Amino acid sequence: MSESPSVLVVGSVALDTVETPRGLYPDTLGGSAVHFAMAARHFARVRLLGVVGEDFPEAHLRLLDQAGIDLAGLERRPGKTFRWSGKYAEDMNSRETLSVSLNVFADFQPVIPEAWRESRLVFLANGAPATQLAVLDQLACDAFVMADTMDLWIRTAWEELVALIGRLQGLALNDSEARLLTGEGNLIAAGRKVQAMGPEVVLLKRGEHGATLFAGKSVVPVPAYPTELVVDPTGAGDSFAGGFMGALAEQGERTLPALHRAVLLGTAAASLNVEAPSVDRLARADRALLEARYQALRAMLRPE
Amino acid sequence: MSESPSVLVVGSVALDTVETPRGLYPDTLGGSAVHFAMAARHFARVRLLGVVGEDFPEAHLRLLDQAGIDLAGLERRPGKTFRWSGKYAEDMNSRETLSVSLNVFADFQPVIPEAWRESRLVFLANGAPATQLAVLDQLACDAFVMADTMDLWIRTAWEELVALIGRLQGLALNDSEARLLTGEGNLIAAGRKVQAMGPEVVLLKRGEHGATLFAGKSVVPVPAYPTELVVDPTGAGDSFAGGFMGALAEQGERTLPALHRAVLLGTAAASLNVEAPSVDRLARADRALLEARYQALRAMLRPE
Repeated sequence: MSESPSVLVVGSVALDTVETPRGLYPDTLGGSAVHFAMAARHFARVRLLGVVGEDFPEAHLRLLDQAGIDLAGLERRPGKTFRWSGKYAEDMNSRETLSVSLNVFADFQPVIPEAWRESRLVFLANGAPATQLAVLDQLACDAFVMADTMDLWIRTAWEELVALIGRLQGLALNDSEARLLTGEGNLIAAGRKVQAMGPEVVLLKRGEHGATLFAGKSVVPVPAYPTELVVDPTGAGDSFAGGFMGALAEQGERTLPALHRAVLLGTAAASLNVEAPSVDRLARADRALLEARYQALRAMLRPE
Repeated sequence: MSESPSVLVVGSVALDTVETPRGLYPDTLGGSAVHFAMAARHFARVRLLGVVGEDFPEAHLRLLDQAGIDLAGLERRPGKTFRWSGKYAEDMNSRETLSVSLNVFADFQPVIPEAWRESRLVFLANGAPATQLAVLDQLACDAFVMADTMDLWIRTAWEELVALIGRLQGLALNDSEARLLTGEGNLIAAGRKVQAMGPEVVLLKRGEHGATLFAGKSVVPVPAYPTELVVDPTGAGDSFAGGFMGALAEQGERTLPALHRAVLLGTAAASLNVEAPSVDRLARADRALLEARYQALRAMLRPE
């Protein structure tokens, strides 16, 4: 069997302070690239391109290293690490950002190490579209590149975002962002319109309601893993994308069945992500647990 | 093959005036019992217990009659028919009630005709819990009775509602109602708590995101049928319940596979309901179309 391809993720590495109805979790390991990587690493080798400050704890670096994540692209710069602080509502479905300090992430101009430029599967986590475009320019033209985005960029960086989307193979976004981006209220029509802007694959994230995969002409609705245990939803979307991209790497193909397996494994990864603060649960979990959740999901979807 | 059992529905028959981004539909045939019946009739004989006023058009009666619905329990009383008027937001997910006139429905005290008292499958559409309880008292004790409810009754008729729920085999309610009823933010935990109040089967409706079936220890998440064509969402929940109960009647059993098939056929029925105003689409559709949507849903859920 040939070695499974790597997944490259470019995004934030952060120190998060999160308050949920279950507890207060100060200065935890966070950031989109971290949640993505800790999910994807169960399925493929993961290369992480990001930046941290002088205050970034060695223990966090050790955790990522011991999880097998390639940190050759993680730069440590003078200054402080990106910090985010937020508070979740009682039902865990909405959150309030209490503070954001970009710190060293503010000037992050990602340069892909030479040895990583041939990466076949790349995830551009949420960030300024201009920065995401600059990364895209450093990649081989036949890579499968998926990006995430958010309402802020739709409102403030429309032209760069549209240019980016036109060059992507995949886009992950949530339902309200899809509506905002396309001006279309119906989510199926919105997903189709996003595809028409460029990416063949669209992952429409619907939070506690799951996700809908658009792949070519196919529409695959996927429920969330039904869990009563939600401790900290932070990073659910990134761990979902991480499981998805990791499972694509592992399978080495992007047929509809492979994409479907990937989206269910992404769902399984996200369900683990939310069961503990930070990436604690994804750090403790093993591949067998993810497979067990995948099988449980399959059985739920078709109990006959 | 023995004749499939009847489904009895008790609920409102109305004249609805609906405004959606797709159009204005005045004085259409509506009401919870009507949407339920027009879905269920594709799978089973349907008995409709309700009341209309002197103004109720003959054409609507003919439509129901020609759809094969048994109208022996539909009383015509002096006065006007129940009227509801509402307007949907751009994304079709929220609506504003513009006016409600209960009219003859205000004094509706349902009396089940003697010949219908042995009905095996009964749906108590949304109404005052005291009225729903009064219907329950007229039924055989081994009937499978499912009810629908709404936030109004949770807020204003708590004791009667809890007494009702304790005697039901099934309860249909939407996600915000489940949260309000149980005080539980997590939907899986909320569904479990509703089951603990009495009904073995809980149908948690999530609008455009589908539904979750709780049946004994099983949890079955079901997506909505992905459609770009939403003309009028009115009655989606009732047609969903109608397809579900009708399909249970048709199958003659309530095993998990039978419940799963029923919930997918309910999803198919709801998708037809919303594609045209009133029950126009459910009136034109045939059993083969519902089966085709069921098969399409199955294929989407497991494309391998």
